[in-house]
Amino acid sequence: ERDRIAVIPGDGIGQEVVPAAVEVLEAVGDFEFVEADAGDAVKAETGDALPQETYDLAAEADATLFGAAGETAADVILPLREAVDSFVNVRPAKAYPGVDALRPETDLVFLRENTEGVYSGHEDRLSEDLSTLTRVVTTSASERLAEFACDYVTDRADAGETPGFHVAHKANVMRETDGRFRDAVVGVADERGVDTDEVLMDAVATHLCLEPETFDVVVCPNLAGDVLSDLAAGLVGGLGLLPSANVGPDRALFEPVHGTAPDIAGDGVANPAATLFSAAMLLQYLGHDDAGERVREATEGVLADGPRTPDLGGDASTEDVTAAVVDRL
Amino acid sequence: ERDRIAVIPGDGIGQEVVPAAVEVLEAVGDFEFVEADAGDAVKAETGDALPQETYDLAAEADATLFGAAGETAADVILPLREAVDSFVNVRPAKAYPGVDALRPETDLVFLRENTEGVYSGHEDRLSEDLSTLTRVVTTSASERLAEFACDYVTDRADAGETPGFHVAHKANVMRETDGRFRDAVVGVADERGVDTDEVLMDAVATHLCLEPETFDVVVCPNLAGDVLSDLAAGLVGGLGLLPSANVGPDRALFEPVHGTAPDIAGDGVANPAATLFSAAMLLQYLGHDDAGERVREATEGVLADGPRTPDLGGDASTEDVTAAVVDRL
Ligand SMILES: CC(C)[C@H](C(=O)O)[C@@H](O)C(=O)O
Ligand SMILES: CC(C)[C@H](C(=O)O)[C@@H](O)C(=O)O
Repeated sequence: ERDRIAVIPGDGIGQEVVPAAVEVLEAVGDFEFVEADAGDAVKAETGDALPQETYDLAAEADATLFGAAGETAADVILPLREAVDSFVNVRPAKAYPGVDALRPETDLVFLRENTEGVYSGHEDRLSEDLSTLTRVVTTSASERLAEFACDYVTDRADAGETPGFHVAHKANVMRETDGRFRDAVVGVADERGVDTDEVLMDAVATHLCLEPETFDVVVCPNLAGDVLSDLAAGLVGGLGLLPSANVGPDRALFEPVHGTAPDIAGDGVANPAATLFSAAMLLQYLGHDDAGERVREATEGVLADGPRTPDLGGDASTEDVTAAVVDRL
Repeated sequence: ERDRIAVIPGDGIGQEVVPAAVEVLEAVGDFEFVEADAGDAVKAETGDALPQETYDLAAEADATLFGAAGETAADVILPLREAVDSFVNVRPAKAYPGVDALRPETDLVFLRENTEGVYSGHEDRLSEDLSTLTRVVTTSASERLAEFACDYVTDRADAGETPGFHVAHKANVMRETDGRFRDAVVGVADERGVDTDEVLMDAVATHLCLEPETFDVVVCPNLAGDVLSDLAAGLVGGLGLLPSANVGPDRALFEPVHGTAPDIAGDGVANPAATLFSAAMLLQYLGHDDAGERVREATEGVLADGPRTPDLGGDASTEDVTAAVVDRL
């Protein structure tokens, strides 16, 4: 039976890069694509940035490919993460040959807790002067993330190598909540024979700049993962190349880390690389490892010596780059 | 009457760099120094990382110079910030000629809210599985910070230039709390005729790497300021050079951003620059603008072409560098 893939281009360049990725996916496999709307444009029409049909589609598809949303980004992406019951956001940040990077040594992956922390969303306006937000940390969510992280690093470890990861937190200030996060993650890793290196999230920010090569896999709470992965994007040359996977137990949602790029939207020159890398992750998630590997390699190859969109100093169109990737498959 | 300065060297290299700063302060003015203990060592002796005398001293001195604390850092620095009723943490991050920096264009200042956010410290263990932290944002603290920021940028603005600052926040997720922060800060700035540029804290992380020269003064909530200023430290070559001021209405506490550096503590080769820059800020805070300027310039001069400690590739001692700074005053 064919895998069913929900396709949600969203706003801005999402409308350009998601079709590019669909073209590439069609070149390597036989999928059922179902398209749906989300974002500023559909909100302007219907009053709702995330129509129920779109939510339902993501909630039952085998995988979802999302582009970007504008002002309504949070109204779209946070519920979509819930729709796929995503407990971890996998965010690789890697510098590619041929692409200018502040730190070409960067090659790491954030495994970001994707359900709680300050994202849990309980806010109260307690008085004219005072508002509060309830930051939530559970052992169960932290352990689920840790199990995923242990599988992830174990799969990647070379024979004979002890797998390991960094655990970022701010348990010196958030003693009870981040303390719980840290203890749960380290506890699972210890049981699984996985090494852990604890590091404060502020220190991670400094050391990512100074010695990114010392990081491989970094497990972190939700907001820490948000900020630190965007930092790493700066080290590899911007958000334009970074894919991400929101993984749940039965389904997953893939999205480029970049936004709608309103300055170039509609010009047909958006760089599709981040979405193509996201499509490669989607293929691997669905078990099509070879196809995923081919898409990743072809995209990397085009980045290294193929046509380039203007953000990388070239004058190729999205379509030129996509055709070059399809050619290399 | 002489200004009374509390001196709290703390642990590790704090014991080396704080005396260096006292030597430089003595060279430019006549102060009453009163020394007190804090940190791991005094905790080992007395059970208390921050003895009441030390707290009281900081709470009544005109200014305090603090070095660093080890494991007990949070137990020392958070109460000391309260002791001086500090509502803003001023954190300049500047690349210096002669010092290797990932981004030599960096020259900016964070104005970090210093009392609330996740630092407010209300945590609860609600069940075996669940802990919460109450993140607090008030309009009054946000406005107090904004007034300070407006004064700060107005003082620095050239004649005819409209002063302005960036406001970092995560109000797309923390709508009520960071929304309150943003609205309060922007509201005060609008009234004062100060320009503001709003920017999401994750986007700041990317853009600090990609184009640090586009930032001058960045106003942010507590944890955002913690992480983003440490990021900026990475851009200018590490924490070794960064000073900071915890400013309250009537007193203030100055500290290098670096820690205790246990690997070199006791060797007499710690770089005193961050503490000397902190001492320069202290002098300016106490109204000794000329003396502060002289200390800053002398320290910059030595960084540019004077003796260097091993962290900067030299083999000078803390004492050599301090003597060179005093020579240049
Ligand atoms: C749009 C926003 C809610 C989102 C987040 O904070 O997770 C974005 O920054 C991201 O990282 O995907
Ligand atoms: C030690 C710690 C509590 C402190 C903080 O988080 O404020 C430190 O990281 C800093 O930035 O001064």
